[in-house]
Amino acid sequence: MMNIEKNNFDLANIVRPTLVIRKEQVLQNIRKIAEKAASSQVRFRPHFKTHQSAQIGEWFREVGVNCITVSSVEMAAFFAKEGWRDITIAFPANIREVNQINQLAEQIQLNLLIESMETAQFLQENLSHSVGAFIKIDVGNRRTGISWNDMGQIEKVAASIRDTPKLNLQGILTHAGQTYQVTASGDIKEIYDASVARLKRVRNHLQEQGVEDILISVGDTPSCSAIDDLSEVDEVRPGNFVFYDVMQMRIGSCSEEEIAVAVACPIVAKHAGRGEIIIYGGAIHLSKDYLLRENKTKFYGLIALPHKTGWGSALQDGYVFAVSQEHGIVKVNEQLLHKFRIGDLLMVLPVHSCLTANLLKHHYYII
Amino acid sequence: MMNIEKNNFDLANIVRPTLVIRKEQVLQNIRKIAEKAASSQVRFRPHFKTHQSAQIGEWFREVGVNCITVSSVEMAAFFAKEGWRDITIAFPANIREVNQINQLAEQIQLNLLIESMETAQFLQENLSHSVGAFIKIDVGNRRTGISWNDMGQIEKVAASIRDTPKLNLQGILTHAGQTYQVTASGDIKEIYDASVARLKRVRNHLQEQGVEDILISVGDTPSCSAIDDLSEVDEVRPGNFVFYDVMQMRIGSCSEEEIAVAVACPIVAKHAGRGEIIIYGGAIHLSKDYLLRENKTKFYGLIALPHKTGWGSALQDGYVFAVSQEHGIVKVNEQLLHKFRIGDLLMVLPVHSCLTANLLKHHYYII
Repeated sequence: MMNIEKNNFDLANIVRPTLVIRKEQVLQNIRKIAEKAASSQVRFRPHFKTHQSAQIGEWFREVGVNCITVSSVEMAAFFAKEGWRDITIAFPANIREVNQINQLAEQIQLNLLIESMETAQFLQENLSHSVGAFIKIDVGNRRTGISWNDMGQIEKVAASIRDTPKLNLQGILTHAGQTYQVTASGDIKEIYDASVARLKRVRNHLQEQGVEDILISVGDTPSCSAIDDLSEVDEVRPGNFVFYDVMQMRIGSCSEEEIAVAVACPIVAKHAGRGEIIIYGGAIHLSKDYLLRENKTKFYGLIALPHKTGWGSALQDGYVFAVSQEHGIVKVNEQLLHKFRIGDLLMVLPVHSCLTANLLKHHYYII
Repeated sequence: MMNIEKNNFDLANIVRPTLVIRKEQVLQNIRKIAEKAASSQVRFRPHFKTHQSAQIGEWFREVGVNCITVSSVEMAAFFAKEGWRDITIAFPANIREVNQINQLAEQIQLNLLIESMETAQFLQENLSHSVGAFIKIDVGNRRTGISWNDMGQIEKVAASIRDTPKLNLQGILTHAGQTYQVTASGDIKEIYDASVARLKRVRNHLQEQGVEDILISVGDTPSCSAIDDLSEVDEVRPGNFVFYDVMQMRIGSCSEEEIAVAVACPIVAKHAGRGEIIIYGGAIHLSKDYLLRENKTKFYGLIALPHKTGWGSALQDGYVFAVSQEHGIVKVNEQLLHKFRIGDLLMVLPVHSCLTANLLKHHYYII
């Protein structure tokens, strides 16, 4: 996990693919969502899987955050060691890790996601300490969770949680990941509204069954970025917004300036005839996540030029066209190609900063 | 990097996504290529980027390997510390790392790839210790290297290397990565033959210019697996064959039994209505590399059942259909789905073991 701040940014110190993090922009991104959550009077429980950094975690503490979300038991253990005392693991409870879960639950307020009676029953028999429980609801993303309209199943799982003294039912939780597939922020609002309406129907149904005090927790960065008033839910858990990326820019969650990270990649070869530059920066640095250009070809990142305090605007016709393990192939126009020299750095704005930051968690630079 | 052997394989010890490595199969894979190289009288310089493991490196030493290939200066430094004394970095020399290169070149026989006069000139001015040099040739892969038919450029780079006392020209080197795109081993032979013919033309041309003793070094696993007689080249540098994977099986480089790794992934949820199982095992464990099924939909791995000594045959109709950061969605038929329980392990045969092993280099199990 990333946990060292490096001061005195100097491009000359960068010799290999390195994640450059603009601290001021990260702080702005954090404040924007923190303020929106405060004015909406909802709990802000940011997802730390994007940055996985103890130090960036402290920046959240400075704006009053004291409860967080992670995506694995391992990550929960890391942040518990860093002093976080209220952690939701936003992934279906992995019963094989029950020993690690018990160790954590002894120390902190730990919340788990439950979506089956099998898991509830296993926990009933094997938990040694109390944990909070959220029922994972699928509002249309079709990744996991009980479908919002399968009220029978939701009821049964709620009942089995309530039958388990060590499981304290907190609420219902969703990740409306279908917002990542949209092309305009208007569509995000439509999905958000539908998701909230579905969660409210679930809550109402549970209330009719006598299950009170059900919190509604939602999670995706597009919704938390595009929706101004979040007051219809009780808790928001976005993660990606801390850095944003080209995918979020494309769907309207952020502006280009709000993208707070880029990967500095050395130029190692030039192919003038092909209009291509080879950078040291491939699948094990950027990840293989891609977006499609207008002509339907893939790209793995946009290109900007580095300068003393970060990087400039993305080049109009520069992009990472292909990646293999360590190589990136960058397309640029001929004019630019001739300006670049071998040994120069290019800054790659990542398609998906969560995966990129995970790959470069030991190779980064905070400026 | 992976460097601990864990004995006494017990599925019960696996609680999170874990790379399981079948040692006996790895040894067979190593011996097969080592024997082929020996009978072809070519130097076997295996690529260690796939396993990145000090311990698996030792298994290569046991069959007489003493020179290796890596893909970064960082990896070269790691294996130099492990006692390897002859290392080729099969990536265009990254001049920003010249300090690290000099440190390594002081200790070991280090070989670099050069494909431009700019790089040769920089090294001339900045190398403090001698290194070997290979000219990187593109025989049709169009990733990087000087095109095999650009004899003028090849001549110039050869001349600038020979003008540099600290650069010892060793030969010409290619990675015919286009073999990864084929669909039958017959096509691999065609690409291999064409590649070797092109490299020979380059060598002949250099000889006509008075440049003697030029070694031919080739690299890809498909060629080294599918071609029986490698005697037309001087050195082979395959890497992936140590583990193989579904991509290699599909193009005819290996049989399913030769795939020596699988990722053990806990089942965390079941969706009977959709014929889908959710596993703990996503993009940060498997990578986002995919192949296409017959119906053109993507898949990210095949599924097998674990047993005491490893895993069984890949299920006919089981595959990883989608991955997000930590989640994998597995399609299986209804009958199987009902047999699986939450908490069971599924074994995922990876699409591309190089990326998967890189992601799980701290979470593995040797059996």
